[in-house]
Amino acid sequence: MSRYFSKKYETLEPYVPGEQPRDRRYIKLNTNESPFPPSPKAVARAAAAAEDLQLYSDPECTALVAKMAELKGLQPEQVLFGNGSDEILYLAFLAYCDSDTPAIFPDISYGFYKVFAESLNIPYTQVPLREDFTVGVEDYLNVGKTVFIANPNAPTGQLLSLGQIETILRGNPGNIVVIDEAYIDFGGESAVTLVNSYDNLLVTQTFSKSRSLAGGRLGMAFGNAALITDLKTLKYSINPYNVKSMTMAAGLGALEDEEYTRKNCQTVMENRTFTTEALRSMGFRVLDSAANFILAGHPAVSGGMLYSSLKEKGILVRYFNTERLSPFVRITIGSKDQMEALLAAVKEVIQ
Amino acid sequence: MSRYFSKKYETLEPYVPGEQPRDRRYIKLNTNESPFPPSPKAVARAAAAAEDLQLYSDPECTALVAKMAELKGLQPEQVLFGNGSDEILYLAFLAYCDSDTPAIFPDISYGFYKVFAESLNIPYTQVPLREDFTVGVEDYLNVGKTVFIANPNAPTGQLLSLGQIETILRGNPGNIVVIDEAYIDFGGESAVTLVNSYDNLLVTQTFSKSRSLAGGRLGMAFGNAALITDLKTLKYSINPYNVKSMTMAAGLGALEDEEYTRKNCQTVMENRTFTTEALRSMGFRVLDSAANFILAGHPAVSGGMLYSSLKEKGILVRYFNTERLSPFVRITIGSKDQMEALLAAVKEVIQ
Repeated sequence: MSRYFSKKYETLEPYVPGEQPRDRRYIKLNTNESPFPPSPKAVARAAAAAEDLQLYSDPECTALVAKMAELKGLQPEQVLFGNGSDEILYLAFLAYCDSDTPAIFPDISYGFYKVFAESLNIPYTQVPLREDFTVGVEDYLNVGKTVFIANPNAPTGQLLSLGQIETILRGNPGNIVVIDEAYIDFGGESAVTLVNSYDNLLVTQTFSKSRSLAGGRLGMAFGNAALITDLKTLKYSINPYNVKSMTMAAGLGALEDEEYTRKNCQTVMENRTFTTEALRSMGFRVLDSAANFILAGHPAVSGGMLYSSLKEKGILVRYFNTERLSPFVRITIGSKDQMEALLAAVKEVIQ
Repeated sequence: MSRYFSKKYETLEPYVPGEQPRDRRYIKLNTNESPFPPSPKAVARAAAAAEDLQLYSDPECTALVAKMAELKGLQPEQVLFGNGSDEILYLAFLAYCDSDTPAIFPDISYGFYKVFAESLNIPYTQVPLREDFTVGVEDYLNVGKTVFIANPNAPTGQLLSLGQIETILRGNPGNIVVIDEAYIDFGGESAVTLVNSYDNLLVTQTFSKSRSLAGGRLGMAFGNAALITDLKTLKYSINPYNVKSMTMAAGLGALEDEEYTRKNCQTVMENRTFTTEALRSMGFRVLDSAANFILAGHPAVSGGMLYSSLKEKGILVRYFNTERLSPFVRITIGSKDQMEALLAAVKEVIQ
């Protein structure tokens, strides 16, 4: 830290991304990436776009917005793209939180909510998850705060029903409710269908997981036109060309191949069931997951121990060293082969 | 604007990017893009990277940082990449400005400085350029503020010498001086060579102009390791994967072909001299430019009139409707053919 750094960041603890070690080849089950390459249509469009990189990208993302609006049955004015859904979430914190309107979110959830609030000096409340690791809907009613809920939640994978989301929306008529659906394509029911019914609903999604574009950085927000206008005002005040032309092209290609996405999500869900059942039969506690990862812990071995032992065997999973999460590791659902390798390694560790 | 939008943005006026009309084909001389495609090495590397988009990009940009540090004679710890230099500048405003440390910059400069300050509620001072449109170095000495200077400046194109930059650096021992070198490769002398001598110097550059990667969004900061650490703390608190893998690959390809960049910059500089002389011979006032654009005005026709007349003839230039800039238009330096088409059109307009 330099002597010039603003004093307001003295206690700021940045987000820590999952490790990307380069010392050897690992089976990477630690950052919730897709085991499948992007659609060939996405690859072809991105590669073609590389030839025109001397030109700025379309700051309105016109073609991509039109296609996405059509797929979701929304108006183009209800859709905004960003440099990953991280950027969209950051804009939402800027737009809808300040010293008068704090943020509220679960104590165990996507780590960035807390980091955004801290870095922007926004007051926030973290609500403990219930004993069973689910989000307690009643904790978020009439709180007078901007609500951030990841659904399914991370790193638990647990899902709220659309009815529960509606309860939260109706319980906060004076405040924005952000539903972060990064993992919704793996079995959840999206709140995008509620956008026309609730003017306080903002839904965020990403192309990083189900559409295999983590390296492209493409996320989006769905909300009524007034909310999207708010976020655009900030986007044009921070980084109008936030979405690169190659990424836009890759995203368009992916949307032209929704069948590919659907099939990959189906495979991940099958592998999730297979892995969950196999781990449970070995004595693991595995939370019910609607995401492309599972949270799993074994009574005989700590999460930290499991993480280290698997890493030694060439398999990376994610470990969170906190009170409630330390018995677990988070395992990304990969291909069948990867899951079988994982299970074989796990078996050796717990024996 | 929604009823939920934070009141602090009530007077925020977002940045307005140069127009990108789709109604017809224009000769686009309005957004300072390169007339040349990216290096074939950049295109090939970007296209290859498209096949692995399911994986997150390296948040440290290790390979790119190493190559850039080597080219500039710096340590990797002195280099940071961002999603365009816009993002780097935004991080610098976050890091080094607050209610105790206002920002200071010329009244005529890159429009984003004012927008960043306003959107972040940072107090700022705009110093009028001198009568001849140059930056008055003495206006920035011992000001107790964080200094932002575009060099060469935009949209004037005027350049400060390295000696003048050093005067500003020595005149602000307690404050950061950000030198925004988006256009430095078109004839200016970079302050990157001063990074090891001044701990208050942050230099930003971009791949958008000289390296023909505007659509890729790749910018960087050079500074001592403590400053780069500050900016990284914020990057990891906002968007760790800010630079996409395809962009990183394109950037690496561009750096492997510096001869191509050098040749293109040389051509732009020759075309700039050619265009400046031709316009002056028609009675234009053209400011001396060290950038890939010129600011030009004619006594017989207003900037607004020139802009509209050229647009009708299929040529886009940039017009700024402010007191001191309204006599001028800003013209991006393109290929020789584009410049000849421009001059022919201008001739018709002023006759």
